[in-house]
Amino acid sequence: MSKNATKIKVGIVGGTGYTGVELIRLLSNHPNVQIVMLTSRTEAGREVSEIFPSLRGVSDVQFSDADDDKLAQCDVVFFATPHGVAMRAAEFLLSKGVKIIDLAADFRLQDLDAFKEWYGMTHECADILVDSVYGLPEINRQKIKSAQVVGNPGCYPTTAILGLSAIIDEQNRQNQMLIEERIIIDAKSGISGAGRGAKLDLIFSEILDNFSAYGVSGHRHLPEIEQGVHGVLGSKFTQKIRFVPHLVPMIRGMFSTIHLTLTDAGQSVDWQSVFENRFQDEYFIDVLPKGLLPQTKHTRASNFLRIGLHQDKETLTVLVVQDNLVKGAAGQAVQNMNIMFGLDEKSGLNVVPVVP
Amino acid sequence: MSKNATKIKVGIVGGTGYTGVELIRLLSNHPNVQIVMLTSRTEAGREVSEIFPSLRGVSDVQFSDADDDKLAQCDVVFFATPHGVAMRAAEFLLSKGVKIIDLAADFRLQDLDAFKEWYGMTHECADILVDSVYGLPEINRQKIKSAQVVGNPGCYPTTAILGLSAIIDEQNRQNQMLIEERIIIDAKSGISGAGRGAKLDLIFSEILDNFSAYGVSGHRHLPEIEQGVHGVLGSKFTQKIRFVPHLVPMIRGMFSTIHLTLTDAGQSVDWQSVFENRFQDEYFIDVLPKGLLPQTKHTRASNFLRIGLHQDKETLTVLVVQDNLVKGAAGQAVQNMNIMFGLDEKSGLNVVPVVP
Amino acid sequence: MSKNATKIKVGIVGGTGYTGVELIRLLSNHPNVQIVMLTSRTEAGREVSEIFPSLRGVSDVQFSDADDDKLAQCDVVFFATPHGVAMRAAEFLLSKGVKIIDLAADFRLQDLDAFKEWYGMTHECADILVDSVYGLPEINRQKIKSAQVVGNPGCYPTTAILGLSAIIDEQNRQNQMLIEERIIIDAKSGISGAGRGAKLDLIFSEILDNFSAYGVSGHRHLPEIEQGVHGVLGSKFTQKIRFVPHLVPMIRGMFSTIHLTLTDAGQSVDWQSVFENRFQDEYFIDVLPKGLLPQTKHTRASNFLRIGLHQDKETLTVLVVQDNLVKGAAGQAVQNMNIMFGLDEKSGLNVVPVVP
Amino acid sequence: MSKNATKIKVGIVGGTGYTGVELIRLLSNHPNVQIVMLTSRTEAGREVSEIFPSLRGVSDVQFSDADDDKLAQCDVVFFATPHGVAMRAAEFLLSKGVKIIDLAADFRLQDLDAFKEWYGMTHECADILVDSVYGLPEINRQKIKSAQVVGNPGCYPTTAILGLSAIIDEQNRQNQMLIEERIIIDAKSGISGAGRGAKLDLIFSEILDNFSAYGVSGHRHLPEIEQGVHGVLGSKFTQKIRFVPHLVPMIRGMFSTIHLTLTDAGQSVDWQSVFENRFQDEYFIDVLPKGLLPQTKHTRASNFLRIGLHQDKETLTVLVVQDNLVKGAAGQAVQNMNIMFGLDEKSGLNVVPVVP
Repeated sequence: MSKNATKIKVGIVGGTGYTGVELIRLLSNHPNVQIVMLTSRTEAGREVSEIFPSLRGVSDVQFSDADDDKLAQCDVVFFATPHGVAMRAAEFLLSKGVKIIDLAADFRLQDLDAFKEWYGMTHECADILVDSVYGLPEINRQKIKSAQVVGNPGCYPTTAILGLSAIIDEQNRQNQMLIEERIIIDAKSGISGAGRGAKLDLIFSEILDNFSAYGVSGHRHLPEIEQGVHGVLGSKFTQKIRFVPHLVPMIRGMFSTIHLTLTDAGQSVDWQSVFENRFQDEYFIDVLPKGLLPQTKHTRASNFLRIGLHQDKETLTVLVVQDNLVKGAAGQAVQNMNIMFGLDEKSGLNVVPVVP
Repeated sequence: MSKNATKIKVGIVGGTGYTGVELIRLLSNHPNVQIVMLTSRTEAGREVSEIFPSLRGVSDVQFSDADDDKLAQCDVVFFATPHGVAMRAAEFLLSKGVKIIDLAADFRLQDLDAFKEWYGMTHECADILVDSVYGLPEINRQKIKSAQVVGNPGCYPTTAILGLSAIIDEQNRQNQMLIEERIIIDAKSGISGAGRGAKLDLIFSEILDNFSAYGVSGHRHLPEIEQGVHGVLGSKFTQKIRFVPHLVPMIRGMFSTIHLTLTDAGQSVDWQSVFENRFQDEYFIDVLPKGLLPQTKHTRASNFLRIGLHQDKETLTVLVVQDNLVKGAAGQAVQNMNIMFGLDEKSGLNVVPVVP
Repeated sequence: MSKNATKIKVGIVGGTGYTGVELIRLLSNHPNVQIVMLTSRTEAGREVSEIFPSLRGVSDVQFSDADDDKLAQCDVVFFATPHGVAMRAAEFLLSKGVKIIDLAADFRLQDLDAFKEWYGMTHECADILVDSVYGLPEINRQKIKSAQVVGNPGCYPTTAILGLSAIIDEQNRQNQMLIEERIIIDAKSGISGAGRGAKLDLIFSEILDNFSAYGVSGHRHLPEIEQGVHGVLGSKFTQKIRFVPHLVPMIRGMFSTIHLTLTDAGQSVDWQSVFENRFQDEYFIDVLPKGLLPQTKHTRASNFLRIGLHQDKETLTVLVVQDNLVKGAAGQAVQNMNIMFGLDEKSGLNVVPVVP
Repeated sequence: MSKNATKIKVGIVGGTGYTGVELIRLLSNHPNVQIVMLTSRTEAGREVSEIFPSLRGVSDVQFSDADDDKLAQCDVVFFATPHGVAMRAAEFLLSKGVKIIDLAADFRLQDLDAFKEWYGMTHECADILVDSVYGLPEINRQKIKSAQVVGNPGCYPTTAILGLSAIIDEQNRQNQMLIEERIIIDAKSGISGAGRGAKLDLIFSEILDNFSAYGVSGHRHLPEIEQGVHGVLGSKFTQKIRFVPHLVPMIRGMFSTIHLTLTDAGQSVDWQSVFENRFQDEYFIDVLPKGLLPQTKHTRASNFLRIGLHQDKETLTVLVVQDNLVKGAAGQAVQNMNIMFGLDEKSGLNVVPVVP
């Protein structure tokens, strides 16, 4: 019996983007996984290392056309595709017993109208969507265990929901508002979050030594954050969220600064302890000791998400960092897969942050 | 009579930092100015172009020791020094009729206790301080005209005060609160703002591909912003300001995102018009048309400060960008000098932003 | 009579690339010039500051379609276009008395076969080409004065030809070989040299923290360098040139390391003196004192080209730096215009290098 | 019996620099290794994750003072120290049966005079030096197996010697000169190679958007390269090497462009085949297929060294890339350890290059 016979057979649809190559990077070192299929409309027939020479000597997988029957032989298929691809393939794959992890947005928003508004298309498998699970392990681990379809969270929502979860839990526990009505999330992302596309706005000479905001009038990650706070976390209260993302001239890294005003009741809470307790058993979530501020480089290339806190009399500032391509995308997807298949949650994710 | 005889004789104390070399860059092209003295404790006797080879062919000024009698022959002396230097030299220079523009903090804060708390030293010329002028031309132009001592604003306060000034003015005019109590200023600065010093935290391999916050528990620019809003702008209202600065892996550029919640009264204001009206005669202040968002590179190496606005039903987001070394430091200092000496305010400041 | 009546009327064809916006940056501060026409196929009707917000408050020029009759009213037209555009417009413009400065390659190579081989098109105005002048002022100033058509040099050739000119001159003077047969030019360029185009290879996440070579099997600037050395400089000797360019993850800057082996005769030459003498009257060419090595930042945004030398017993290393968009493109074009119109050669080019 | 009982006990002297933290990053994932001691003069008593928060959740090792008796209990000690430290500790550690891998230069140069000249100190254990082995596995694997002391190669020499080794071997085999007398190595390094020190020249605002040369008049890696070529490789011929290093504004990565002129005999060699044959069994050495050029990012954070070739009629250009901190330092040190202890050479080194 071959060594690979007992490995999980993985398919990756759309392996030419940054989340795709990141999946390959992580899965190549995963002891329980074999990538059996990697599809690309444009690169079929070429070896993955022709497109990503970084993988020379690491992976000899070839790109192929998406072939439903071959995908049906996988145990799990990751969609590292544009929005709208996974939802069209889901029914068939599920009928064949293949699990699905979508790194795009098809299975993130339960609200069909919001999906249509923000992604410009009608959802094509609402019935599957309703049974899918939002893949934030530190919140939804039990549901993920038995999920057939996981919607991998957006990068910003991962920082926002995890950054707010301890607070929402505490509010629910105390059954009173601990933070004032307005939550400000001022978020900053590395450029890789904008994808691997030939766009003028993304070329080096436009980005280096520059800082900008975008999506100020509205960003599709806001309804996902709101769903996370009000739906997933089940907040009993209805704080409003203002979300403004920015672009940082760096490749990887995401930094969300969450500005909160404390109510009188909230001022008497020791938030450092609340956060530490909330995440004490979560390997990938690191609550920094009081006084230490997070930097994105301390998560670079790893699946860690680190949280720093500063509590003043009237304000609480929550600083959340992650590598947007790992905990914010491919790493979290692998973490979800590990949970879905009953593996050690850290398998394939023991990458030490690369510093400097 | 020599060509230089009618030029303003300028001295620069402390010309080895980034604000110093930036002053030299700008003043070298100023038609009405002659740099007659440039001092440095460490580099006396060397030509400026030995320290800054970028100035080869541009300036043949030599560094000299600070010599009070020679400085006394200047018309104006810029202090591009650490905090505390200008206040010790002020009395003597004023007695000789020399005007002073301090790029450090000695003449920014009128509150002596705040100065001591944030800068760790007792102010040594409170009497001069009280007559000094806070050098924000777009707010204080009339006072600057007759000032003998100008405290050049900090970089963050420049963006914050100018970003809020139109709002405060409108509040005062309407005599009612237009924004809710909590003002969030989430600011981001290029690394040159941290100065030209040999510090481990500043070396390239620590900074590139990294994003971090600092001063979260308190930053000396906050009392200056508060003074600006409540004192200089004369706000009748007492909104509280939460200020969190961050470091961006870029050399130049500052981006302040000001998050405001509008009161009912504030929601009925057309803020785009208010800002456009407020700054219509200000050459260096550029209110972007609705829908356009500012980027720091569009001010790079120039004295422009650009403001973008986004007004939702309940929120107003003010995005302010500048080059921290120009409008945030040396350029504003030259602008102040121009005003103090009755010159065209744009003299020496016609640098077009360097893009890409 | 209006202030602009006596100004040189300038047209710029193709103003949406990096050399185009750089021309606008420099010419906006040129005291003797008025930009009367700026053309773009794609942006006609829009203000230049819509495409380049850095120019807000600086220039209110509008893009227009290329209109031959309107261009014919210019005194000089700059072509900041792809290769092949200027040569098609040249005959008409010359017939109207309009001077031409082409920043592309149409008037660089006198060898028609080489032009066809390297640029993939047949030259369409060989008769005009033969009368055109290669626009390297420090070599060809006299010819440029009376030129109707100037071919602005490529960025690499500018560094290579100026870096070798003092040596070739000295060889010719001594009438013997001073350097061995093989000249190695290992050149490094900032990314802006690759232009303002939406190409995957140029996006930020592909370029930052990366270094690469290109054109190793042949680069179109090699025949131009060879023409410069053997033709323009009139070398009596036939050293062979190996040219390998590389891409540096920076926006601006070019660094050419020229590796030479000295003949016995060459070893007895004091090359530092030879270079200093050669360029002593050239404002924009800066031969650094012995022991000082050039850095690209010391030319950033300026028209300086700086040369450092290291002479060992058997080897001579010539290190040449410039800003590829200024002395390597737009700045040199303005310098050529100044010469063609009898202006001060430095007009509009008094930009101090931007450091840091 | 504890899980760690059979693991190799590793000590790291000087763990606060970049090679130190890189060793910890790699060894933390090494299945056969336990870090039992980590010393630092300045940080004794602190946890490694206090200095490098990237290691939070990864390593709980504490810094301690260097204690010879405790080091004596290690199986192997890595010196990630300044030059001169390892040679003073070597005799004692060897007497206790501890193997030594020095990442500094104490055991690189066999020529004592050259060591003194380039490192400014007299060697203190010449007898140990003579028995030490130069730790370039692809050249010296057999000797490394039984070595007690390994001098880990410099970063530049690793690229230069491996880049030239196939050529020297072929020359020796054919017993004739295949390349002309002058070898030019034009090398480019990321900034992390300059170490983790608070130096003004290394701060971000001095480095970004800048390119420079250094060591043009001589660099300590040249004698090491010459020793490698003439000594280690046993070249029968005496080509002279000109080595010029440069600094690239990137954190990691090294790119050596080796310019060679082929003799008549050398022109008839198929160098692509020679290189492919030479390295066909070397996992970490990747000879790229004809036409593909290497980029440093394709080795980022990994132990790969990739070589691209371009052969013209008269010239051969060898392009060598690596991550300077991995194959150029800590990774190669781990590779050496694996060989010395009979482990799989790839253990702990299965890091996939991090792209983007």
